[in-house]
Amino acid sequence: MIKSVFFDMDDTIYDTSGFAAIARRAAVKSMVHNGLKCDEDTGYEHLMEIVKEKGSNYDKHFNLLTKEFNGEEDPLIIVNGIITYHNTKFAMLKLEPESFSILLYLKSKGYKVGLITNGKEVKQWEKLVRLGVYPFFDDVVTSERVGVEKPDPQIFKIAMGRLNVSAGTSVMVGNNFDVDIMGACNCGMRSMLINSEITPEQQELLDEKGYSVEVLDSLIDLMKIL
Amino acid sequence: MIKSVFFDMDDTIYDTSGFAAIARRAAVKSMVHNGLKCDEDTGYEHLMEIVKEKGSNYDKHFNLLTKEFNGEEDPLIIVNGIITYHNTKFAMLKLEPESFSILLYLKSKGYKVGLITNGKEVKQWEKLVRLGVYPFFDDVVTSERVGVEKPDPQIFKIAMGRLNVSAGTSVMVGNNFDVDIMGACNCGMRSMLINSEITPEQQELLDEKGYSVEVLDSLIDLMKIL
Repeated sequence: MIKSVFFDMDDTIYDTSGFAAIARRAAVKSMVHNGLKCDEDTGYEHLMEIVKEKGSNYDKHFNLLTKEFNGEEDPLIIVNGIITYHNTKFAMLKLEPESFSILLYLKSKGYKVGLITNGKEVKQWEKLVRLGVYPFFDDVVTSERVGVEKPDPQIFKIAMGRLNVSAGTSVMVGNNFDVDIMGACNCGMRSMLINSEITPEQQELLDEKGYSVEVLDSLIDLMKIL
Repeated sequence: MIKSVFFDMDDTIYDTSGFAAIARRAAVKSMVHNGLKCDEDTGYEHLMEIVKEKGSNYDKHFNLLTKEFNGEEDPLIIVNGIITYHNTKFAMLKLEPESFSILLYLKSKGYKVGLITNGKEVKQWEKLVRLGVYPFFDDVVTSERVGVEKPDPQIFKIAMGRLNVSAGTSVMVGNNFDVDIMGACNCGMRSMLINSEITPEQQELLDEKGYSVEVLDSLIDLMKIL
């Protein structure tokens, strides 16, 4: 019997990628308006390449973009990008209704609810607080704080230890096959994939290991399953 | 005859310290409300000690404050401090009417107007853009970008070089005696002190070097002097 449900944050309970894409488009529009020498679509494409190459926690994406198109780091353009990015992101920051509903449902049924997220402590907590969702979680584990990242089994064990639950009675819900699903399976946890599909290669890996994973269309499906 | 006027930014054209103090008070209030184990006045006093010790560009003031009173870094408390600090700061960000008036006056009279500021490029430009004041400046020099800080004569020379003006026809206006005034005097620039007073020791130093400095009650005084 399942007693505890662990969630990933980004692109699982919150549409991080979707909102980041909109905020980055708004930022590029503002940068072009302030002198970035390219059109908006080209600027956005190049920005996404920079984000992919440097990672989302790198803090000089807009500097590199400006250097690429204008030959130098123009602070007026960079700062307009930063301000528009943040204004847009905070204006949009809102929890999916499904996430709110399922968290409320799980708490009302007495489940222990945890969050296991790869990322910077303050950045991840800022989202939880701005979304107003942190009171739903009995515990939040960020990789920066505990020093190990998903899919390392250690981070799942730390999370279960802190809630005093075992792998046999726990579920992990996440959108990333390699990180969330394989990590949880390797710990003996039940696993559920959301906002993603299983590729044939991934299914082969699961079969080989004797693992199984449930694929959810919506977090609301958890109500039927649990 | 004066042809160019250089301004310092923080506490000269913008009441940085005053607004930071209000934003920090708001942040501490929110932190106490979320579990920081002290009263608001005590928390604020200790925060100011941390800011003084670590400098204003250090990014873990609230972490240290939380550790001091609660024994550990509680992310909920820290993040509430950060969010409240930024919300308050941006809500208040507004140029003094005197600054706007004098900048407009100087431009209308044909003066070249520059900004020379010690600080991080993006942080200082963000203020200029959010304040909507950057179009008044023919040039902005930040210490991070040029690699030298006031009072180093080099930063004043770089600023004058970029506007193609000489020390003999330039004025420096700032609030910090050691940094703005002595730096400018050492370069042969005329200097004006604002939002501060000359101590007897400072006057002695000026006399010894044969320097003079004008003390302004308000930036508006520049209209009468120039």
